[in-house]
Amino acid sequence: MKVLGVDPGLTRCGVGVVEGVAGRPLAMVGVGVVRTPADADVAHRLVLIERGIDEWLDTHRPEFVAVERVFSQHNVRTVMGTAQASAVAMLCAARRGLPVALHTPSEVKAAVTGSGRADKAQVGAMVTRLLRLDAPPKPADAADALALAICHIWRAPAVNRLQQAHAAARRASVPVRTLKGTR
Amino acid sequence: MKVLGVDPGLTRCGVGVVEGVAGRPLAMVGVGVVRTPADADVAHRLVLIERGIDEWLDTHRPEFVAVERVFSQHNVRTVMGTAQASAVAMLCAARRGLPVALHTPSEVKAAVTGSGRADKAQVGAMVTRLLRLDAPPKPADAADALALAICHIWRAPAVNRLQQAHAAARRASVPVRTLKGTR
Repeated sequence: MKVLGVDPGLTRCGVGVVEGVAGRPLAMVGVGVVRTPADADVAHRLVLIERGIDEWLDTHRPEFVAVERVFSQHNVRTVMGTAQASAVAMLCAARRGLPVALHTPSEVKAAVTGSGRADKAQVGAMVTRLLRLDAPPKPADAADALALAICHIWRAPAVNRLQQAHAAARRASVPVRTLKGTR
Repeated sequence: MKVLGVDPGLTRCGVGVVEGVAGRPLAMVGVGVVRTPADADVAHRLVLIERGIDEWLDTHRPEFVAVERVFSQHNVRTVMGTAQASAVAMLCAARRGLPVALHTPSEVKAAVTGSGRADKAQVGAMVTRLLRLDAPPKPADAADALALAICHIWRAPAVNRLQQAHAAARRASVPVRTLKGTR
């Protein structure tokens, strides 16, 4: 099972690809960050994120995409940008018929470290150990993306099969849409 | 000047195209709603919104796209979906090199009715009068999309020229992106 994890953000979007199955050693396939300039307008930044994510999907051909679930409760200042970046990641995956799973930060931390309240350093350390890396991936967004992919591989074999079936059914169906123009 | 206004939402995305210039009577070119099923997963709904918006852009070829600016302060339950739908609308426009403008709900109400605190009925009534329609467009999301387009035509001729220049410069430039894969 090959999974692309995405830690969404307008300035830095962490991306990491992990391959493996639950109960066996996992392998890192790739890790990086899609960056956009803070002084560009939001619409253009979303285009850059789309290009970045598409390039990761083209290069690594994952079977699943796991995106961090964004909550509106905390960090109100940046939450809109995070929601928008996550929308682009979900869109890029779903457009290709790839199943998209959302995991909360606590689910990811709990899966990887055993505690839903683990800090960045603990997550980075566990990702390093689980993927047998020489050092924790940097920046933290990249490590978080790998943690998301690991969480997905471990958490939901049954959920994955269900989502794949849904995605396949959808590819075969006609899209629901309303469109009216008067000229 | 032809403007597509988008009132973003996951369930109903209002879309309206208005043509004209400030100080002259305006004409409605098209109005409608892009809908997605509430029981579908978010990723798939974003794909349906993308297809809907792309079809409106293909059909009407607007020169500008005006999207309602989403705030995280109010209506926390639906704000994430609204932010995600607005991201898709901005992405569809910016990908074609179209300038994207964001207007707040109060800016739109103030432009169209004279009051930033106008209610839905007042906005609908003014849109009907300004575009010389037989009845207010329904649902309210469709009327709001037209109001956004009208607001954009009236508010910012200078801003528009600046944005067009930026968009043209961007089309000519190389995208900024970081991508690393280890396999």
